[in-house]
Amino acid sequence: MSFESSAHTKAVALTKLNVEMTTAAGSGHPTSGASLAHIVTVLMYNHMRHDPGHPGNKGADRLILSEGHAVPIVYAACADLGVVAKYGDDYRSTTRDDVMQLREMDSPIDGHPNPEEGFPFFDAATGSLGQGLSVAAGIAEAARLDNIDKRVFCIIGDGESREGQIWEAVDFIADRKLAAVCPIFNCNKYAQSDAVSPCQTPEATEAKLKAVGYEVRVVDGHNPTEIQNALNDHTANQTGEGKPFAIVAKTIKGWGADVMQQGNLHGHPMKANVLEQCLVELDATAKSLDASWADGDLNIPAVTNALPEAPEPANAPSFSDAMKAAGKGDVLAAGKMATRKAYGVALNALGHANPSVVALDADVQGSTFASDFAKDEALTDRFIECRIAEQNMVSAAAGLGQGGKVPFASTFGRFFVRAYDQIEMAMNTGANFKLVGSHAGISLGADGPSQMALPDIAFFRSFAKVNNQAGNPTIYLLQPADAYAAYGLVMAMADYEGPCYMRTHRPDVEFIYDDATPFNLGGHEVLTEGRDLLIVTAGYMVHEVNKALDDLEAAGIDATLVDLYSIPFDEDAVLDLAQQNNGMVLSVEDNYGAGLGGAVADILAEDGGGFNLKQMHVRRIPKSGKSADDLLAYTGLTSDDIVQNALKLMEVASA
Amino acid sequence: MSFESSAHTKAVALTKLNVEMTTAAGSGHPTSGASLAHIVTVLMYNHMRHDPGHPGNKGADRLILSEGHAVPIVYAACADLGVVAKYGDDYRSTTRDDVMQLREMDSPIDGHPNPEEGFPFFDAATGSLGQGLSVAAGIAEAARLDNIDKRVFCIIGDGESREGQIWEAVDFIADRKLAAVCPIFNCNKYAQSDAVSPCQTPEATEAKLKAVGYEVRVVDGHNPTEIQNALNDHTANQTGEGKPFAIVAKTIKGWGADVMQQGNLHGHPMKANVLEQCLVELDATAKSLDASWADGDLNIPAVTNALPEAPEPANAPSFSDAMKAAGKGDVLAAGKMATRKAYGVALNALGHANPSVVALDADVQGSTFASDFAKDEALTDRFIECRIAEQNMVSAAAGLGQGGKVPFASTFGRFFVRAYDQIEMAMNTGANFKLVGSHAGISLGADGPSQMALPDIAFFRSFAKVNNQAGNPTIYLLQPADAYAAYGLVMAMADYEGPCYMRTHRPDVEFIYDDATPFNLGGHEVLTEGRDLLIVTAGYMVHEVNKALDDLEAAGIDATLVDLYSIPFDEDAVLDLAQQNNGMVLSVEDNYGAGLGGAVADILAEDGGGFNLKQMHVRRIPKSGKSADDLLAYTGLTSDDIVQNALKLMEVASA
Repeated sequence: MSFESSAHTKAVALTKLNVEMTTAAGSGHPTSGASLAHIVTVLMYNHMRHDPGHPGNKGADRLILSEGHAVPIVYAACADLGVVAKYGDDYRSTTRDDVMQLREMDSPIDGHPNPEEGFPFFDAATGSLGQGLSVAAGIAEAARLDNIDKRVFCIIGDGESREGQIWEAVDFIADRKLAAVCPIFNCNKYAQSDAVSPCQTPEATEAKLKAVGYEVRVVDGHNPTEIQNALNDHTANQTGEGKPFAIVAKTIKGWGADVMQQGNLHGHPMKANVLEQCLVELDATAKSLDASWADGDLNIPAVTNALPEAPEPANAPSFSDAMKAAGKGDVLAAGKMATRKAYGVALNALGHANPSVVALDADVQGSTFASDFAKDEALTDRFIECRIAEQNMVSAAAGLGQGGKVPFASTFGRFFVRAYDQIEMAMNTGANFKLVGSHAGISLGADGPSQMALPDIAFFRSFAKVNNQAGNPTIYLLQPADAYAAYGLVMAMADYEGPCYMRTHRPDVEFIYDDATPFNLGGHEVLTEGRDLLIVTAGYMVHEVNKALDDLEAAGIDATLVDLYSIPFDEDAVLDLAQQNNGMVLSVEDNYGAGLGGAVADILAEDGGGFNLKQMHVRRIPKSGKSADDLLAYTGLTSDDIVQNALKLMEVASA
Repeated sequence: MSFESSAHTKAVALTKLNVEMTTAAGSGHPTSGASLAHIVTVLMYNHMRHDPGHPGNKGADRLILSEGHAVPIVYAACADLGVVAKYGDDYRSTTRDDVMQLREMDSPIDGHPNPEEGFPFFDAATGSLGQGLSVAAGIAEAARLDNIDKRVFCIIGDGESREGQIWEAVDFIADRKLAAVCPIFNCNKYAQSDAVSPCQTPEATEAKLKAVGYEVRVVDGHNPTEIQNALNDHTANQTGEGKPFAIVAKTIKGWGADVMQQGNLHGHPMKANVLEQCLVELDATAKSLDASWADGDLNIPAVTNALPEAPEPANAPSFSDAMKAAGKGDVLAAGKMATRKAYGVALNALGHANPSVVALDADVQGSTFASDFAKDEALTDRFIECRIAEQNMVSAAAGLGQGGKVPFASTFGRFFVRAYDQIEMAMNTGANFKLVGSHAGISLGADGPSQMALPDIAFFRSFAKVNNQAGNPTIYLLQPADAYAAYGLVMAMADYEGPCYMRTHRPDVEFIYDDATPFNLGGHEVLTEGRDLLIVTAGYMVHEVNKALDDLEAAGIDATLVDLYSIPFDEDAVLDLAQQNNGMVLSVEDNYGAGLGGAVADILAEDGGGFNLKQMHVRRIPKSGKSADDLLAYTGLTSDDIVQNALKLMEVASA
């Protein structure tokens, strides 16, 4: 059995390096890595079609390490295989010395997998558990759309599989017949605190998978032949039927050395004084397994694919033309339309113009108007119904982005709150994805606060002032005020390579823009120029402020109204506007605090020019009410409240 | 079968009212309600031990409607039974007229279940799907601790059961042997957009439940006898073994009227012009079922329990005394300790002082130091290991709070991001719960950004300026700078009835306070009084700023250092401090934007007194580094950076 003895040799060698690098780092998870020694060996040396010299070739098979903390064992293999990564400004083969720099500030050998730090072998930043299988599914969706035969392996910890998102992904893969995905459950029996639950045993995991129709192989995760056979079965299973397939591997945490199995040493590197003993024990294990290396026993299959170049998108029509083409000329003429409906029109037009665009929705396409894309015969193959599982949808969208697509994922803005962890990890990944959250703010009315996005501006704004590795804002946060703006911003999002979040509203609102108005990430629009008071607002509230302008004028206040539809925005321009209005500023928004008004407060307070800013936002938990107006009254945000607040602000100033 | 014919009579009557009230409201989900007509009838008229006159008696059996949108059918039963709710300022029996006010602004008959709006029959605000079963589990945990026989029924939609959190709760109930919980899966075959997935059929659901050892009854959800028998089996199953039990009900969406089954009418009330036809069809259905009501056929069992009064907590010892009692006198003497470690000491001392305190953790007790509670023999019965499933943990904590306990749930601050939806719903619920997020900010160092809480201040700050129904801040956000502060704030959180989030840090830090320092929600501490520059900071960064003070003094800057450990805080006091320092303010924090500095910017910009605020916060996505200092340098937040920023700020001001 020379395959076996060579595989054991490599498994021991990788385990040793995995131990050494974590001891050198003074932190990390060598026992988790050891449990994966054989799985990683068989995958990376004998099964995955990958090219160590070109790890960024996304036509190659991919490995998503969902249990990201186990990464040192993969780094060990990468050092041995010379997988290329970015060191300083250059890409070159990884060496043993490189991985001994694990977790150093100036090293791409990060504590958890992170492609954006210069390690393109990985497609996903992981470390917050339970997300990798969804990303793998998204990558497989992209490959299928490109008609390339790419397999996506995903290693999931048994303790990790307690995360509900894993089971959202399991269902998703079954629904979508994504046989190219090969989930591998690493059942090493221990989590951090304790043994895993009886609900996370290999037997329970197998039964859960079979409950939704998976073909399952349960293997000894330290038997190279069993692993290889199961992986071959996965390949053989990839027929047209798309039957889902998974491997459940029984493994040993701290495999190969007794000293790694004393108690549950999760996340504890070997102390320097036991390192030598650990390495000696690993050598003894190798000997007991008759391990010996022979070149040619293990062979990395060649990569046969390259990801196709994304086709050049055509120009999308103007909003007016798109509306007419959609048979909505009457709505256009009537001059009133909800931004969520405009999203549907935009998504459809964009889908026709750009073959890379993929749409996802979480069972609310009729509310978000993703249905305009889903129900178009020419586009429906690029629509993915994710059902009621927002976390999986977001991570799958990140996977689609990493597979070269331009994914637009929609649900109620409120329900994206559930996926904020996944969104943050997708941003860390450097993925290109667009989120569109509908029914934002209080204007939703009747359904109550469980359906209203209220802290979303604060959350996304927190990231907007943080640069990603490309030097861009980590995300753009967009709030269109009318259908033209929603349409224009969808096109702007598609043109930009990076994360965006756009919020849309439920009620129909009047048009305030036209086809000639440009909408840019980072942009804003001055709707009325005055000299007494700057009012900054966005989205639905632009209309409520508009209603207040006449009364303000009657009260002798000549107001400037700015639609600040993007965060971040042009800070100097907003400062200038504030100065032109004697430093008097009122902000108005339909959500909780730390939002748009907060963004303005930041720049005014930094400038120090003696500004007065009154922030109007939702200051009590809302409830159901029949109409948007009911809710505006309940939260003190009607046009009359705006007038009163403006008057009070001006009085204070003149007092 | 007079039980059957009476049950059918009631089911039809409730369905009719459910249809009428949604038509009157112009929105809502009558077809979902109709699918639950018999289940709600049997539960509320013949099985649950509840008292319509005292729905707030938490000793009664409870109903959690996880698929909150189906609530009109429950409101219909409440109107019929005269369940007490709050109308205006008074509590009185609900009438038919009351529920016809569904979704009105001044009505407690909210669009989704919401106890805080005056409807105490419900324990949980629901509507964001997938959360109810976890809350039910938390309520059952509380009842078990109180040794009362209370059953908790939870109705879950089939489409809803795609949410991973449902399966986290399913596992949790199995692990914890919570046989008092009775999950009822309402398999009506349709979600909003389409038929449910093959992964959400009754058969797949049954198989998933059996995979983790559930006893399952599959019933016709419109057969009263089958429902009653299954519920009786649940009761009979409640032996000491705690074997988990569930009901899978096959139901019909829009049961009882063809006009409700034309296509998938999810979330569409009957239009006024078909309402009459719908009611006629429902009457015909009643006739075809030989429905007739006879008093005495259905009987609500009496409530035998009342929730025991929470015992009066004893006074907790001082931090010094608690440290000595914990055998940590040497650490106390050494004068250095991480705030996460102090959390462990505090949680233990609090647990001994207050029998209502329950601790939860998500498989990281050794990192958060919840282990100090978990591993104490006197407390371990009140520790709940939630494993790697943060969403379930948070919702279960809300359930414990609703069951009269004082739950403290801990994990890495980063992993609470995954449960922000659940946290928001728990706040809407009005639950009393405390979250403690460890390893916050960049000082974590080696593990990288997947483990660092970075947007948490922005998110929680968004809620802190929003009042809940009790008129309090929706949440208090706390950042202790040393072990004394962490200890004191744990005690302050326990004394307060309402949600709190405290973040702790990984590294050991020097003591700056003592036993005499009071720590209050809303408080702050002036550490150094100067007159040139106000520096506001919190948590770990207090120490970094402290290091900068000498250099600042050498540069001629007499700085005031404020530990702003609470948000919200005393705004007037901070404004005064800013004024005493000539309006010059520097904020320093170890997280992303829109945080503490943003909170200060808000008040400075509102005051308009010509302040200058420079905000220092993390402005790039961090990566792994060996130490906290490495990360501070990487993100420009070292004490030297603080000095440079202060100098620049003062120069600008004097220029």
